[in-house]
Amino acid sequence: MEKIILTGDRPTGRLHVGHYVGSLKRRVELQNSGEYDKIFIMIADAQALTDNADNPEKVRQNIIEVALDYLSCGLDPEKSTIFIQSQVPELTELSFYYMNLVTVSRLQRNPTVKSEIQMRNFEASIPVGFFTYPISQAADITAFKATTVPVGEDQLPMIEQCREIVHKFNSVYGEALVMPKALIPENESCCRLPGTDGKAKMSKSLGNCIYLSDSEEEVRQKIMGMYTDPNHLKVSDPGQVEGNSVFTYLDAFCTDEHFEKYLPDYKNLDELKDHYRRGGLGDVKVKKFLNAVMQEELAPIRARRKELERKIPEIYEILHKGSIEAEKVAAQTLKEVKDAMKINYFEDQQLIQEQTARFAE
Amino acid sequence: MEKIILTGDRPTGRLHVGHYVGSLKRRVELQNSGEYDKIFIMIADAQALTDNADNPEKVRQNIIEVALDYLSCGLDPEKSTIFIQSQVPELTELSFYYMNLVTVSRLQRNPTVKSEIQMRNFEASIPVGFFTYPISQAADITAFKATTVPVGEDQLPMIEQCREIVHKFNSVYGEALVMPKALIPENESCCRLPGTDGKAKMSKSLGNCIYLSDSEEEVRQKIMGMYTDPNHLKVSDPGQVEGNSVFTYLDAFCTDEHFEKYLPDYKNLDELKDHYRRGGLGDVKVKKFLNAVMQEELAPIRARRKELERKIPEIYEILHKGSIEAEKVAAQTLKEVKDAMKINYFEDQQLIQEQTARFAE
Repeated sequence: MEKIILTGDRPTGRLHVGHYVGSLKRRVELQNSGEYDKIFIMIADAQALTDNADNPEKVRQNIIEVALDYLSCGLDPEKSTIFIQSQVPELTELSFYYMNLVTVSRLQRNPTVKSEIQMRNFEASIPVGFFTYPISQAADITAFKATTVPVGEDQLPMIEQCREIVHKFNSVYGEALVMPKALIPENESCCRLPGTDGKAKMSKSLGNCIYLSDSEEEVRQKIMGMYTDPNHLKVSDPGQVEGNSVFTYLDAFCTDEHFEKYLPDYKNLDELKDHYRRGGLGDVKVKKFLNAVMQEELAPIRARRKELERKIPEIYEILHKGSIEAEKVAAQTLKEVKDAMKINYFEDQQLIQEQTARFAE
Repeated sequence: MEKIILTGDRPTGRLHVGHYVGSLKRRVELQNSGEYDKIFIMIADAQALTDNADNPEKVRQNIIEVALDYLSCGLDPEKSTIFIQSQVPELTELSFYYMNLVTVSRLQRNPTVKSEIQMRNFEASIPVGFFTYPISQAADITAFKATTVPVGEDQLPMIEQCREIVHKFNSVYGEALVMPKALIPENESCCRLPGTDGKAKMSKSLGNCIYLSDSEEEVRQKIMGMYTDPNHLKVSDPGQVEGNSVFTYLDAFCTDEHFEKYLPDYKNLDELKDHYRRGGLGDVKVKKFLNAVMQEELAPIRARRKELERKIPEIYEILHKGSIEAEKVAAQTLKEVKDAMKINYFEDQQLIQEQTARFAE
């Protein structure tokens, strides 16, 4: 069986280093590993609209931002099909039929949906489209016959929901859908970056994100202003590295080679942490090191982005081609789904013969 | 503005005289009135699947039954576009986007949905597709720019839901959708036939329906076995006409001319009712009269059905043509909807220019 990946992002803003460390960097590795037969990367505008219905312009503006971030990081349209969700209408048709296979109470129990509803302060006024988005995700995954869906642990309930739909569909209508599996990062710890203010989640509205598209100076300023240990007042004070954003970012970004290059007094991150813990190491020194490390990683991405920003029509063309290709695949799956459900009446010669015979009796 | 009708039925069984009196007869009158520019009649298989997901074969088998009933009653494919819902995929796409404009709690308050959930014993395990079908109905109505939706009073909340969606869509995205109105029968009393057993609702599972496709003998037997007044034991007993199915059916079917022809001892139904009320009129006599009246109405329908049953492939062809025509109209509406939402990115030259300019700054 082919190994197929489906993944993507909601285009509600530029992508930040949290996306990079949490999924994007790995996605590029998976793409280049040669282990997968097909990779579909979806810019999930339709999903973004489920809780941004009043602000479609935000979604419309950010599609190109996400596409630029993707290509800057090394996603390659020659190797991965990058497409826009709304341009594959077959997905809505699959969603529609899958909705018959899931109960309202099952959706209400979905922990991811629960916590996201809370996060958005939706409570009683959840848009139906948002409430049902696990079903829409199942459509996205199955439309491309994805075997593999790279997600964080918090997204596991979504994959579980999808697997239930696949199971239900295949048992009611016959084996038409491919059962997907979640692919969880091996090293989860490094993959969830806090905000620069130390808050657990990066969020545009909190202004605590470092974007892939930030300039060198913006990145430097954000790092120099980063949350550390609030009790580490004087250089001589002992400091804490746990919950200290600078060290969490170093966990995610730095290697031993970086020390050799930028901070040869230390062999590795453990030595640096030890010094910080016992006191005598100032935040500024650590931040400058983090800045050097991150600039090294971000500089080529930023440079590629600058180049790509001069070729906007070409980027749309890439998305257009990807969407056409994605639609072709989804249309084939939809055909198989409708054949299994036997609702392709006009192509179903057997049906017409059966009914003719029935009334001739 | 054009006057456009959208109406239809779920293909979960053959249509019965309740459908005929409640909607079908009137629909033919509306069709032939010449007052409407377009009439769309939908065989709602996709909606039927929302609570029959486990039994798609039932829906599949009954599409042709409903089509035969339609054509037998005088719906004319030259005047009305008769189509199958699932063959117009644009409807699912519209549903998908409308779902963002309705909250879960709003759906929960819908009285029609509430009572239908109760009727089906769904309670906690309502399929999501069933729960959200008012939104799907709004897609059906708006896809054809229907101005007029003929419904019974019990369906008014569905039209209200649709109107809310139209209002919300037009105010968020711009005036793309046509606001529909319900068309309620003037004489509601005659339009809700009870079962032959006196139960309020006809239902296949209760076996209390007279079908349009029943043979003359089947109709006769069902009428002769019909529920009357359980206290009207002897002919001489006074009888009650309220809640007496035979009289309710007479209310719906008989005219003064029928008395002249079949029961000249009485001038009209009022005289017959008076006699029944004061005693001295037997059930058998009234039932025989009802039988004469109903056979007269049903005979030509039955005859046309017999003819049509010999032309099954042609019926599918009518549905196929109707579905193609319906899809054309829905596709145009969907295009307008997507233009309003500005999610037709690849046809949107302005977007590409805007973004190019933005990044050139």
